[in-house]
Amino acid sequence: MSELHKRIRRSSLHEKIMSPEETIPLFKNGMDLGWSGFTPVGYPKVVPAILADYVEKNALQGKMRFNLYIGASIGVEIEDRWASLKMTDKRWPYQTGKVIQKGVNNGEVRMGDKHLSLYAQDLGYGFYTKENGGKLDLAIIEVTGITEDGGLILAGSVGVTTEIVQIAKKIILEVNTSIPSFEGLHDIVMLDLPPHRTPYLISKVEDRIGTTYVPCDPDKIVAIVESRFPDNGRALSAPDECSEQIAGHILEFLQHEVKSGRLPKNLLPIQSGVGNIANAVVGGLVTGPFNNLKVWTEVIQDTMLDLFDSGKLEFASSTSLSLSADGFRRLYENWDFYTSRVVLRPMQISNNPEPIRRLGVISMNTPVEFDIYGHANSTLVMGSRMINGIGGSGDFSRNAYLSIMHSPSTRPTKTDPHGITCVVPKVTHVDHTEHDLDILVTEQGLADMRGLCPRDRAQVVIDRCAHPHYRPLLQDYFDRSQRECFAKGMGHQPHMLFAAYAMQKNLLEEGTMRMAGWS
Amino acid sequence: MSELHKRIRRSSLHEKIMSPEETIPLFKNGMDLGWSGFTPVGYPKVVPAILADYVEKNALQGKMRFNLYIGASIGVEIEDRWASLKMTDKRWPYQTGKVIQKGVNNGEVRMGDKHLSLYAQDLGYGFYTKENGGKLDLAIIEVTGITEDGGLILAGSVGVTTEIVQIAKKIILEVNTSIPSFEGLHDIVMLDLPPHRTPYLISKVEDRIGTTYVPCDPDKIVAIVESRFPDNGRALSAPDECSEQIAGHILEFLQHEVKSGRLPKNLLPIQSGVGNIANAVVGGLVTGPFNNLKVWTEVIQDTMLDLFDSGKLEFASSTSLSLSADGFRRLYENWDFYTSRVVLRPMQISNNPEPIRRLGVISMNTPVEFDIYGHANSTLVMGSRMINGIGGSGDFSRNAYLSIMHSPSTRPTKTDPHGITCVVPKVTHVDHTEHDLDILVTEQGLADMRGLCPRDRAQVVIDRCAHPHYRPLLQDYFDRSQRECFAKGMGHQPHMLFAAYAMQKNLLEEGTMRMAGWS
Repeated sequence: MSELHKRIRRSSLHEKIMSPEETIPLFKNGMDLGWSGFTPVGYPKVVPAILADYVEKNALQGKMRFNLYIGASIGVEIEDRWASLKMTDKRWPYQTGKVIQKGVNNGEVRMGDKHLSLYAQDLGYGFYTKENGGKLDLAIIEVTGITEDGGLILAGSVGVTTEIVQIAKKIILEVNTSIPSFEGLHDIVMLDLPPHRTPYLISKVEDRIGTTYVPCDPDKIVAIVESRFPDNGRALSAPDECSEQIAGHILEFLQHEVKSGRLPKNLLPIQSGVGNIANAVVGGLVTGPFNNLKVWTEVIQDTMLDLFDSGKLEFASSTSLSLSADGFRRLYENWDFYTSRVVLRPMQISNNPEPIRRLGVISMNTPVEFDIYGHANSTLVMGSRMINGIGGSGDFSRNAYLSIMHSPSTRPTKTDPHGITCVVPKVTHVDHTEHDLDILVTEQGLADMRGLCPRDRAQVVIDRCAHPHYRPLLQDYFDRSQRECFAKGMGHQPHMLFAAYAMQKNLLEEGTMRMAGWS
Repeated sequence: MSELHKRIRRSSLHEKIMSPEETIPLFKNGMDLGWSGFTPVGYPKVVPAILADYVEKNALQGKMRFNLYIGASIGVEIEDRWASLKMTDKRWPYQTGKVIQKGVNNGEVRMGDKHLSLYAQDLGYGFYTKENGGKLDLAIIEVTGITEDGGLILAGSVGVTTEIVQIAKKIILEVNTSIPSFEGLHDIVMLDLPPHRTPYLISKVEDRIGTTYVPCDPDKIVAIVESRFPDNGRALSAPDECSEQIAGHILEFLQHEVKSGRLPKNLLPIQSGVGNIANAVVGGLVTGPFNNLKVWTEVIQDTMLDLFDSGKLEFASSTSLSLSADGFRRLYENWDFYTSRVVLRPMQISNNPEPIRRLGVISMNTPVEFDIYGHANSTLVMGSRMINGIGGSGDFSRNAYLSIMHSPSTRPTKTDPHGITCVVPKVTHVDHTEHDLDILVTEQGLADMRGLCPRDRAQVVIDRCAHPHYRPLLQDYFDRSQRECFAKGMGHQPHMLFAAYAMQKNLLEEGTMRMAGWS
């Protein structure tokens, strides 16, 4: 019996096995598609590539367009290829890839982003496909096996696969035989519709409340295809000096909170975003003073394996194993050790306010920019150009015990190594409001905004977080704004509304946000 | 035995009874105070007034300043009097009153606003009074009785009284003998600290999970004062034509959702904010086609009594009975009927994402303005001038099954009956992001933004919600922004960033937002 047949323990499904080419007639222009996958792990790698081949070969660019509902990012080899073949119409809720980003920003791709937990439930509620009766026409799901009852054993991510399976009319399965069966790693709960939703009885990070497989109506399964492509995963670059400094400020702050009795000795469950700074923070924990740590997050990256290896991390809950190729190798080599300490959940649960708030998660994420009053922009450069999407940053920031945003204080432009200040008077787009965030950090220092009114916040953010090159300019903005607004009796959150984006204007015209002054 | 003594069923506390004047020595300049009260019901009415008399008589203005942590608004006769006597330094998280608002906006009062559910828990976590060991120096709590065990039987609101009682060093009780004992109306759950928080097992609006009293260490009680002042409550004005039109659009939409199978016949639990439009919506439900309704909200206003009387409302959960004087009279006259159908919860629970999301609440709130891409401003006029505070609008909007924001499409200025458009290119302050809101409504119509990318959202909002006087101006902004941004490859959410507030500038300079054009 082939490995593929072994993985499909419900033998009546063997007759649905076919070649990827045979699935092509299932696709029609304008369909709503749901795919497994998250940051880019567990997405279908065979059928989308074959369909792209078909479109290219038959010059169907612009004539085979689809609406894609996925957990988050998928591999660029698929994402960008589909975008370049004009196959992507709507795309929710997150993407990475140069071609897709170009399409999103030139009007070719209609992308939307919503907080991941909300997106998951709204997809399940049928809100995104109202015109389609709340259904998806077709799903493509990567699995590592099928149980005797037809339950789907997923791969390295869950994302919105649960909701997709619930609302899909037809399902294509890609059984990945190049990686082990991930059976036992998932804790699957399907979405109930209100008024019939019940509490998620998770009081500890490691609590399990569901099944190890996604229940699936076998009649929906129209094709099963073998996949032999492992996830390429996501490699991390080594932390730089700036990231190390930011991590240092955060670790010092956490120690101070423990001393003050506002955090237990082993902290509270940690959520850490993606990127250099997140890695540096986790790296700091590897050598730091805290033990018996737990992680409640949406992505587990390679550095989390280091934290497990250090013996300091007890358990991690996530919706995705966003490891590098090397990270996956480590995982497979030490499978029992790691997998007994990890659970993968639907993102409707990993990102749900309910467990995040109950568990008291410490959230840490990197925005594009934040402002002196404590608003952050995570998605749109200059208020318009989409980068990737909001992801789970809002789910975590709004509901965390401590909501931390970290960023370098400046970024370089072509002509000025500090041409962009990430601490601005007023962010050009708001993803996280002043009502959401507690702590802002740059390599310059840490601003604890808890309990401060907007004006007190502004002063501490300028003093602690702004780069010295920009501090006088920001202070001048704040001082002038106070004078102007107090005189008009409108100084709760002082702004010079019509000059608030002058630094951004200077950037476009002069290549740097360092400008002479405000008048 | 006096009524006061009867209400205090723990007789050992009778010795703490004193005159309000005798409490004055308990107050010291700079103290952190916690008061009961919410929208303005259940706040202390005696001691704060006596302390104000004392400050006035002894010319202590500016020498007796306090930080006030309350549930939400209190009566203006206290709020504004304290502000005029310079007694209010910090003030969280919401206020109403002309004098306090002046102070907030001229720099005298340091106000902060956070989502009510978050504010409640962060107060309980000790974040607002870090410098004070996370404690409040003194609490003043209105009660309608004390149990044999010293449990506090609250009055017409809960708010953050639970958290205040937990972190207060000393407590003054005002026993209100002018109103009935509200025993049995409250469902009290105290705040546990993570990692020891547990699920709130509320699966139906009417589920009770706590006690009918607030557990309180009797040693903390330093004074008991009698109060004979009933709540003045909050009167409502009759709905105007604009509000009726908005309510009409919403009711039609809800019927459409029922027909489409996306809502049950009796809808889902309703949250309705304060003001004319909210009244009109509830008024529409009184005569509308829906039965067996439930309400999960933060304030119960007079129109909810009408809805009970109509037989269409089964149960309501709230943190406050924000009734008018006449409404309270109706409540007392038909006490058993109403109170068997109402429960009052701590706002940490009434506004908590956990039950709001689980129950699938339909939220409806009025912002100051919203923009074509679906952001809303609920707090700051011109991005700077504070009105009242964000209240619970973010708690509900972010977590609702359907998140609805409603507003008149225009407001008058001195010189133009349509001088202000509430539908703008870019809101001057963001309290609710594009990732939070589903439906925008004005008297012009209803825009269903679910599943739409920003550009598709903008078109439907302009077409459905904008006033005809402003539609061409907004369309022109949108068209030009697309051309400019697509050309630069930054058109996911097209803006002319440096012209986005031109209409607001025109308003300040010309008294109307109707302007000639964008160039």
